[in-house]
Amino acid sequence: MAIETIEWEDGRIKLIDQTLLPNEFKQIYCDDLPTIWEAIKSLRVRGAPAIGIAGALGAVIGIWNSTANTYEAFGAELKSATDYLATSRPTAVNLFWALDRMTRTAEENKHLPIPELKETLLAEAQDIIEEDKAMCRAIGQHGMALLNENDTILTHCNAGGLATSDYGTALAVMFSANEAGKQIQVYADETRPLLQGARLTTWELMQAGIDVTLICDNMAAQVMKEGKIQCVIVGADRIAANGDTANKIGTYNVAILAQVHEIPFYVAAPTSTIDFALSTGEEIPIEQRSAEEVTEGFGRLTAPKGVKVYSPAFDVTPASFVTAIITEKGVAHPPFTDSLGALQEE
Amino acid sequence: MAIETIEWEDGRIKLIDQTLLPNEFKQIYCDDLPTIWEAIKSLRVRGAPAIGIAGALGAVIGIWNSTANTYEAFGAELKSATDYLATSRPTAVNLFWALDRMTRTAEENKHLPIPELKETLLAEAQDIIEEDKAMCRAIGQHGMALLNENDTILTHCNAGGLATSDYGTALAVMFSANEAGKQIQVYADETRPLLQGARLTTWELMQAGIDVTLICDNMAAQVMKEGKIQCVIVGADRIAANGDTANKIGTYNVAILAQVHEIPFYVAAPTSTIDFALSTGEEIPIEQRSAEEVTEGFGRLTAPKGVKVYSPAFDVTPASFVTAIITEKGVAHPPFTDSLGALQEE
Repeated sequence: MAIETIEWEDGRIKLIDQTLLPNEFKQIYCDDLPTIWEAIKSLRVRGAPAIGIAGALGAVIGIWNSTANTYEAFGAELKSATDYLATSRPTAVNLFWALDRMTRTAEENKHLPIPELKETLLAEAQDIIEEDKAMCRAIGQHGMALLNENDTILTHCNAGGLATSDYGTALAVMFSANEAGKQIQVYADETRPLLQGARLTTWELMQAGIDVTLICDNMAAQVMKEGKIQCVIVGADRIAANGDTANKIGTYNVAILAQVHEIPFYVAAPTSTIDFALSTGEEIPIEQRSAEEVTEGFGRLTAPKGVKVYSPAFDVTPASFVTAIITEKGVAHPPFTDSLGALQEE
Repeated sequence: MAIETIEWEDGRIKLIDQTLLPNEFKQIYCDDLPTIWEAIKSLRVRGAPAIGIAGALGAVIGIWNSTANTYEAFGAELKSATDYLATSRPTAVNLFWALDRMTRTAEENKHLPIPELKETLLAEAQDIIEEDKAMCRAIGQHGMALLNENDTILTHCNAGGLATSDYGTALAVMFSANEAGKQIQVYADETRPLLQGARLTTWELMQAGIDVTLICDNMAAQVMKEGKIQCVIVGADRIAANGDTANKIGTYNVAILAQVHEIPFYVAAPTSTIDFALSTGEEIPIEQRSAEEVTEGFGRLTAPKGVKVYSPAFDVTPASFVTAIITEKGVAHPPFTDSLGALQEE
């Protein structure tokens, strides 16, 4: 995309408010911790890599106006900021990864004068952004090798440029194929309750001139049965060492449908999404979202007042449903404990 | 329900406008063919049995003010009405069944004076309503025997009182169990695009005091994985002789999830829904709905303007995914060609 999803501008974070898309394109500024925390929590910025960037830049915001003159005081402010930011989205491993990296950078440079340390932390956050861009393009290149001419791909939620610095993970594969001149078509699940597929994925693909068709989540089975889909590609919020994949609610559903219809199911995600400390996905906590997202997500009440709602934000797709995991370092095949482990060592 | 879904009142059809529920409870009157046709087409009245009743009462509307004085002229008016009504919802076999029954009744009574023939046709439509009520209660009784104490049932779309004259098919099982004092809980899929589950099923179950939890369609897999569901019960719009079942889009999805999670998947429907002329579900035409239902179904645009949309109204669940079919004559088990055939002969 020509416009950055999230960036640093003159002491503030500037980001696209994705809750307003596709009807309104608006960039907002976050110049204090509560504002960036709220932006992450409310999905104004969303998608695992973009949340990582938001966390890193948020950590910078947390210390940018610090008047501390000892590392001890400065480090305490940084810790307070990162602890707070970590509470915004409990399932997003990229968030913790980015916050840890900022903390480590501070530790490693604690001998620097505070003003230089601030600049070093900002430079680290900028590095995360640049690495993210390179990572997205590498995922796109590795993934497009899995596509055949005229393939139609189903995707769920939004793992596009808006979920990263600018190019995406699952959608990077489609953008790369399209740029390389491969003919592809895409079906996008609308992805209830917040409709990231309807609002964001279709928008990004249409912007890129890729043929995209919107469906409701419950139509994917029928579309597959009609032979319309050659593969599924989704992003990931957190991948366990064995390949179990946490991603937007409904991903596990799609994975089951793909397996029953004998369609390859690919996960596209940076290696930073892999949590080697988790042996399986059973240990991944599942965030619950508010009832209102389901009952009044479209601007008016669409269910009886007071109805009980169960709304997990994520599900975990067991590795047995995953055909391959596309990373910036290459494509991992089952058994994933071995193949992901090999990527880690690179 | 205390209030009739659809009934005849002083020369007009009176029905609950289900597109306004649950926010507004309003009954509307249809006193000409275009109005009842539009009510069926726009899902103001929906659900296979209720559509059948709407068709039968619609046929009466079509001839109620007839000034024909020969059976030939009268029959031509009736045929014109039934042909027109048949175009409102092409997948609904109950509609054709009811229209055929009205035509047959006219033929069998063509010797009567026209005023008496009109009354005979109205009486036939009223018989369809009374038979429907008895049918719903019988389905409820047969189905509740399949439930255990403390079972939690997942249902999709609305096969409740609003889909019939007053008691439902899939929901009749739950109403019967509840009235018999069995403890049950229900999860209701919201059922995109028109949210019949969110708007109607939760409303009906809450009215009956049954513990119901609303989920988005794409959450069913996760809910099953968590062990929360003991069986699935759905309605049907059309069942082929071999048990293949056409029902609201997303039903096939749920059936796959149930099979993968080893959960019984029951279809509850009157035998009038069984189309013995269809050997398999492959022959069932799938109605396409308009893009706007997906992109602006809730009053505001939730996808980019001009996005392509694919929106099948129904899907066909192959019989191999169906554990049993609950009818008013009893419960049919596989192989369905035999068990449904035996019910037909009763």
